[in-house]
Amino acid sequence: MSLFKLIEHRQSVRKYASDPVEETKLMQCLEAARLAPSASNSQPWTFIVVNEASLLQQVAKATKGPLGTFNNFVVQAPVLVILVLEKPKMLTEMGGRLKKKEYPLIDIGIAAEHFCLQAAELEMGTCMLGWFDENEIKKILSIPDDRTIGLIITLGYPAPDYPLRKKSRKPIESIVRWNRY
Amino acid sequence: MSLFKLIEHRQSVRKYASDPVEETKLMQCLEAARLAPSASNSQPWTFIVVNEASLLQQVAKATKGPLGTFNNFVVQAPVLVILVLEKPKMLTEMGGRLKKKEYPLIDIGIAAEHFCLQAAELEMGTCMLGWFDENEIKKILSIPDDRTIGLIITLGYPAPDYPLRKKSRKPIESIVRWNRY
Repeated sequence: MSLFKLIEHRQSVRKYASDPVEETKLMQCLEAARLAPSASNSQPWTFIVVNEASLLQQVAKATKGPLGTFNNFVVQAPVLVILVLEKPKMLTEMGGRLKKKEYPLIDIGIAAEHFCLQAAELEMGTCMLGWFDENEIKKILSIPDDRTIGLIITLGYPAPDYPLRKKSRKPIESIVRWNRY
Repeated sequence: MSLFKLIEHRQSVRKYASDPVEETKLMQCLEAARLAPSASNSQPWTFIVVNEASLLQQVAKATKGPLGTFNNFVVQAPVLVILVLEKPKMLTEMGGRLKKKEYPLIDIGIAAEHFCLQAAELEMGTCMLGWFDENEIKKILSIPDDRTIGLIITLGYPAPDYPLRKKSRKPIESIVRWNRY
């Protein structure tokens, strides 16, 4: 599959089949994320793979929106991956502070997308979650207080009836400018 | 090419041939970035394509490290793409503030990597730059004061003698944990 087809094929999957994820496929997704580029090659990340049923249920509960308004599907996913931000190298951090950039968040985005594209190529589905009760999840997974959770990714096989949606995006003319803003 | 081969193939290219970039190939990279996922599909980005020689030289100069210590190669690239952060949707922004997350930076990372992977598939080279004189570049390209530059990407064909490097990354055991930190 060309990258372009793969990009069209990847979508946020919010309904999962009960099939488990094969360990070799999970490892391939993690390997794709491991090879991601990062500012000064600092690789400021730890991936916590959650697949124990009781832990997974607790984490899924901590991703629910107020009054169960969203993320109720998370508990269906057989695997959750928690992306924890680690401290970048000193030089990158100094550069980042000087320029007021948060490089590790950019890096986390890149690594997460490597993971999700690889999963899509293997016919699995993912959804990146930005909403969660961070303190609660840190307690559940024994994540040190001084660490930050960047993102959570759900992973599993899409439910058989889950449709491929057409992507809704801004037209190219509205997001691209030539030589000046 | 499988995604995995493509990920291995993509690398930061810091030496460019003089060949220009075909507009169709440039547009394909921009299209790959356009289709990137983002928090609440907010697509908080504008891509400024810089290919006018005099502007490009000015921007390249503004990416150089102190005393010319790095980024001296940038001026060789026939195209620079400036990723400007736009305001996300109100709901995403509120969620982000509540959770102290900077979603747009994660989104910018994802879109930038779509661009770079697509360029690699088309045998072009890229390098993401996080170091630059933001105020100077905003002046050169008439970017409004209240906008932020997330990243700059260099784009061009690698110099013919440019080697494919083996990736240096942390071993998988040191970045993956199971069910607990």
